[in-house]
Amino acid sequence: MPVGTQATVKSMTQEELQEIGFKIILGNTYHLYLRPGHKVIERAGGIHKFMSWPNAVLTDSGGFQVFSLEHLRVIGEDEVVFKSYIDGSTHVFSPETVIQIEKSIGADIIMAFDECVAYPVSHEKAKAAMERTHAWAERCKAEWQASGSISQGGSGTPQALFGIIQGSTYEDLRKVSARAIVDMDFPGIAIGGVSVGEPKQAMLDVLDWTVPELPREKPRYLMGVGTPEDLLDAVWRGVDMFDCVLPTRLGRNGSLYTTYGRINIKNARFTEDFSPVDPECECKVCQNYSAAYLRHLYMSGEILAARLATYHNLYFYYKLMAGIRQAIEEDRLKEYRREFLAKYRKHRAEVGDGQPRMSE
Amino acid sequence: MPVGTQATVKSMTQEELQEIGFKIILGNTYHLYLRPGHKVIERAGGIHKFMSWPNAVLTDSGGFQVFSLEHLRVIGEDEVVFKSYIDGSTHVFSPETVIQIEKSIGADIIMAFDECVAYPVSHEKAKAAMERTHAWAERCKAEWQASGSISQGGSGTPQALFGIIQGSTYEDLRKVSARAIVDMDFPGIAIGGVSVGEPKQAMLDVLDWTVPELPREKPRYLMGVGTPEDLLDAVWRGVDMFDCVLPTRLGRNGSLYTTYGRINIKNARFTEDFSPVDPECECKVCQNYSAAYLRHLYMSGEILAARLATYHNLYFYYKLMAGIRQAIEEDRLKEYRREFLAKYRKHRAEVGDGQPRMSE
Repeated sequence: MPVGTQATVKSMTQEELQEIGFKIILGNTYHLYLRPGHKVIERAGGIHKFMSWPNAVLTDSGGFQVFSLEHLRVIGEDEVVFKSYIDGSTHVFSPETVIQIEKSIGADIIMAFDECVAYPVSHEKAKAAMERTHAWAERCKAEWQASGSISQGGSGTPQALFGIIQGSTYEDLRKVSARAIVDMDFPGIAIGGVSVGEPKQAMLDVLDWTVPELPREKPRYLMGVGTPEDLLDAVWRGVDMFDCVLPTRLGRNGSLYTTYGRINIKNARFTEDFSPVDPECECKVCQNYSAAYLRHLYMSGEILAARLATYHNLYFYYKLMAGIRQAIEEDRLKEYRREFLAKYRKHRAEVGDGQPRMSE
Repeated sequence: MPVGTQATVKSMTQEELQEIGFKIILGNTYHLYLRPGHKVIERAGGIHKFMSWPNAVLTDSGGFQVFSLEHLRVIGEDEVVFKSYIDGSTHVFSPETVIQIEKSIGADIIMAFDECVAYPVSHEKAKAAMERTHAWAERCKAEWQASGSISQGGSGTPQALFGIIQGSTYEDLRKVSARAIVDMDFPGIAIGGVSVGEPKQAMLDVLDWTVPELPREKPRYLMGVGTPEDLLDAVWRGVDMFDCVLPTRLGRNGSLYTTYGRINIKNARFTEDFSPVDPECECKVCQNYSAAYLRHLYMSGEILAARLATYHNLYFYYKLMAGIRQAIEEDRLKEYRREFLAKYRKHRAEVGDGQPRMSE
């Protein structure tokens, strides 16, 4: 899922997202609640009509944003009080209000309100946050069931509520949390609390502890992940869904994914490189524009730089996931992964590869 | 001509410009010389290949930019010495070097190097600048003829050099300048030194003095103009070609042209206006997106705001010029102008209407 924080995948039109092939995007409840306001979106007929996006939308619960802005919040058992980053006004999120807001926004998939702790965190604090997350998940479910809400999208299907597993990097907590969330019988299950600064191996450990607890028939969503390598590793462990700002955010910063690793287009070696950014890529950008032109646009601070790089990076991610899906169907995921990485890691030394989480 | 200062019409792809219908865009010699450098563009195969634009390009001469940056320059009879706004390095433009640079860039239409004075200016200074402009026009022509340069574009036709009339707001100077430039027998003739802060009536006076001096068979290009009303007024007086940053720059600032006047999309009255920005507009933006969504994008500082507004404004200008062309063919320009303005001025009181010149 490309990340469309403020009801826009940064620099893209909805036509372009459809052209690439995306069937679902993510919106941020916290941001949309503050601006333009969930009631504005409701009166527009829901997020799909508001932003003219005919395919599916998932909204997060705002938990990650509320808990990321440390100094702005007071956490109680029942609710979180926080100040708007836009105008300093005071707001309250509770499990019930978050579900109401998500109903107004009208996405196809909505997320339960969870407490997402930073990394590292003590076992005690991680346990308390996990228990609050479970209690809130029950309350979210009750609120969601109280009014059979219908997606405002073209599908007209009921909104699906996903529960979120927490527990930081502690095996016991992750297993307890997985079982608790599974027991609540949500339509889908998310693994949260990763991509918050932990080492890559810790994220993989979380998957190894958690995924075996999940029912096969329900979608598993790993929140805020990740790099192309992360996606391959997580799918290998049984994850179905992802969201990540990497392709869009890195694109705006001049970092482009290619078959042979990630490049920084601002590098002087592209000044007179009149070939495409990725000669093996079939996207509109690589078909029409050269690396030298993209570099010029970046050096000149032009908006078109962000557009072209974002389009290309989203295409790269889309093709990666499409390739993974096909490889699974053909029972050759291991080979696909090996072939992809053999090329992708060729030039890996050139740039680092981080894994920020989803808020843009 | 949409303005593509740095080999990009800000926020647009070349595919979108073609989709709207544009057959020619403008690039800035001064900017392209400094970045990426005219030699880079030459090695790319010319501006058309560098930016992947199959239609025509016109490059200005850099005169306007060099003379706008007051504190950065020393003017001699033979050349202008100026400092780069990018890195402070010293550069020299002469009529000969400017033509050489424009040959490297490879546009279809190139402009002579002129001295463009600000408004207001004394008769004495305006006369001196005009005389230098005439001397430089002769030198530009000689340099242009010395090497029969071929456009790097798809047309493969010789580059056409346009001379530029100066003379500020003085009738005697404008008439002298028009005759001098006409006598040099350029393929096309431009009227420069307007849109530099003078009152609208002064610009119309310049046209009334100048246009009657021009041969009917050559294109007349009014540089840096203007508002929709300016275009109607100037075409009425016999002008054929224009360039202006208004549709793109105003778009980025949230000002959108509509059939019923220019609006500021940031206005609170659009918060829940779920209809198109201009209900009578057939552009992709008005077909797909609402005023409320555009307002949200602006208030959120999103790149898509600039994109959608720029596309819409360029479409508006394109349709205006297409309408003017058709009205001329049908011999009803007066009626077209009256009908257009009757609608366009309905809401004119809402916002002011300036006329900045071409550099972005």
